[in-house]
Amino acid sequence: MIQKHNIRYLFEKDIIHRYLKKLNLKKEETFNFKNDGAFLKKKKNKEIVVTNDTILESVDFFKSDDPESIAQKIITYNLSDLSSMGAVPYCYTLSLSLPKWISEDWINKFTKKLFFLQKKYKFFLLGGDISKSKEIVISANFYGYILKNLILKREFPKIGDTIWVTGNIGESHIGLLLKKKIFFLNKLYQKYFFNKYLYPEPCMIGSKINKISTSAIDISDGFYGDLSKLCDKKNLGADIMISKIPFSRKVKHLLKNKLIEVNSLLTGGDDYQLIFTTPAKEENKILSISKKNKCKISKVGRIINKKGIFIDGKKISNSRLSFQYFF
Amino acid sequence: MIQKHNIRYLFEKDIIHRYLKKLNLKKEETFNFKNDGAFLKKKKNKEIVVTNDTILESVDFFKSDDPESIAQKIITYNLSDLSSMGAVPYCYTLSLSLPKWISEDWINKFTKKLFFLQKKYKFFLLGGDISKSKEIVISANFYGYILKNLILKREFPKIGDTIWVTGNIGESHIGLLLKKKIFFLNKLYQKYFFNKYLYPEPCMIGSKINKISTSAIDISDGFYGDLSKLCDKKNLGADIMISKIPFSRKVKHLLKNKLIEVNSLLTGGDDYQLIFTTPAKEENKILSISKKNKCKISKVGRIINKKGIFIDGKKISNSRLSFQYFF
Repeated sequence: MIQKHNIRYLFEKDIIHRYLKKLNLKKEETFNFKNDGAFLKKKKNKEIVVTNDTILESVDFFKSDDPESIAQKIITYNLSDLSSMGAVPYCYTLSLSLPKWISEDWINKFTKKLFFLQKKYKFFLLGGDISKSKEIVISANFYGYILKNLILKREFPKIGDTIWVTGNIGESHIGLLLKKKIFFLNKLYQKYFFNKYLYPEPCMIGSKINKISTSAIDISDGFYGDLSKLCDKKNLGADIMISKIPFSRKVKHLLKNKLIEVNSLLTGGDDYQLIFTTPAKEENKILSISKKNKCKISKVGRIINKKGIFIDGKKISNSRLSFQYFF
Repeated sequence: MIQKHNIRYLFEKDIIHRYLKKLNLKKEETFNFKNDGAFLKKKKNKEIVVTNDTILESVDFFKSDDPESIAQKIITYNLSDLSSMGAVPYCYTLSLSLPKWISEDWINKFTKKLFFLQKKYKFFLLGGDISKSKEIVISANFYGYILKNLILKREFPKIGDTIWVTGNIGESHIGLLLKKKIFFLNKLYQKYFFNKYLYPEPCMIGSKINKISTSAIDISDGFYGDLSKLCDKKNLGADIMISKIPFSRKVKHLLKNKLIEVNSLLTGGDDYQLIFTTPAKEENKILSISKKNKCKISKVGRIINKKGIFIDGKKISNSRLSFQYFF
């Protein structure tokens, strides 16, 4: 065990000095990774929100996936959670458990992607931990700021509220099905959907809609599953118009040609779009936020006084709904 | 992948409802694990300190170790880091990556120990993440409060400062050597040292000494290694009197009978005691803190104007020093 420790620390030291230190952007909170921990800066009138997501080989990605894709996923999963709470990114910690086959080239590509995403979404690496493991396990805690009392929660939509969805649904899921060789498409489509699966992007509109939203969640687990969590309390349900669900031109083409079922797209996950609700009267505000932030936001239905999810009036069976928590 | 996800969520859901929810103590920060994340409460005049530690099967513990021991380790590693920064525990997040052989009984024992330690050291579970993995990987982020500007750091001891060590050194390391069957002792000793290795306890005196200390670190990586990190900057070193290093009666007995070398005890890790420095004039204050808190604190040497660690005047070779960071 001692020997292992020594080897491990040498390994850690190299990774830290050559690749991870760049990611702390010399922020004072990090003590430049020289202390036993770090600290979070408080901001007046703001709360600090925390999310935690872990991704594993063979579950969230394939061992042979590009390191850039794995970096994109750990960042997107967490940023999407921050956004769904209405927060803006601040910083993150990273626990890297890496097998010995991981090369310096892998680390280089992985950290370059992290750096790119840090610049894009404006946050930095607060600290973390590296260990040697049998398989890749990457765990991150993300921190975000939000104005006091504006944290968006899952459970407070009201009957009559409008249900909104950002972006397009089902693209990452099609990428996964292609990756698993469950079905095939032409090269152009193949590449397009692979990319959606390998490089999912978070929808960061949460901090713009938190003042007028009554609830929000991000779609990691499938449209049906995540929507059902919004309506989890009391006698609430959702009345959804299938024609209003936002699909891209390419997905519409597949649907039209019956190459994929709409229910499969709404059950599959990893969309990292937001579902949120607002009072019906806020429609114009949402449309203006959508326009101003160049973010597609679609009105897909409304909250009703009846348990379940109804698609064009037909109730979706419970087996299509899945669960996930923070835990 | 979809199938796996569904199975995983069922598994997660059971663990969460039956075992993890109890650990959130219904604190509002946790949203009772129903949201995408949680938030941290700010306290007037206090900073929020963050630590991050991951423990893995075959590295930090053996697969067959009791779940209670694994729980003790993830908590101790992190609490010890909080203490070394001078903070008092507040809450934590937990990423559990667990193989499928993990039973409900295992989870029950693991979470019972967590609950016990939460009560003992007064903190709660803020949230987290569960996944299925090939081996056990447990990652935690801990949060602590500390009065503004009192965060203890590694790098600011001054020449002439007194070097202090809490508790006793080397006991966990002897337990590890016994566990690895590198040497053997009688049953009584065997049990005593196994226990020190399997159930290391953090020394929580950090928050009591933060006003008068000039630097602090916890001993996770060995007395020599961690002490060398305190003297890492500039032309600083440590002059240590071997006779002052605190050993328990049992360890002294082993040393006297030449069953173990003193250098082995000072190189081995997992003590989770603190090394800290204060100006020489603060000696009486430390002795009074020691008495008041029933915490053994020993004066072991002083900071000198010469690079290296000197034991009774003899310089320790660099190969005995190890490295670890946050990273």
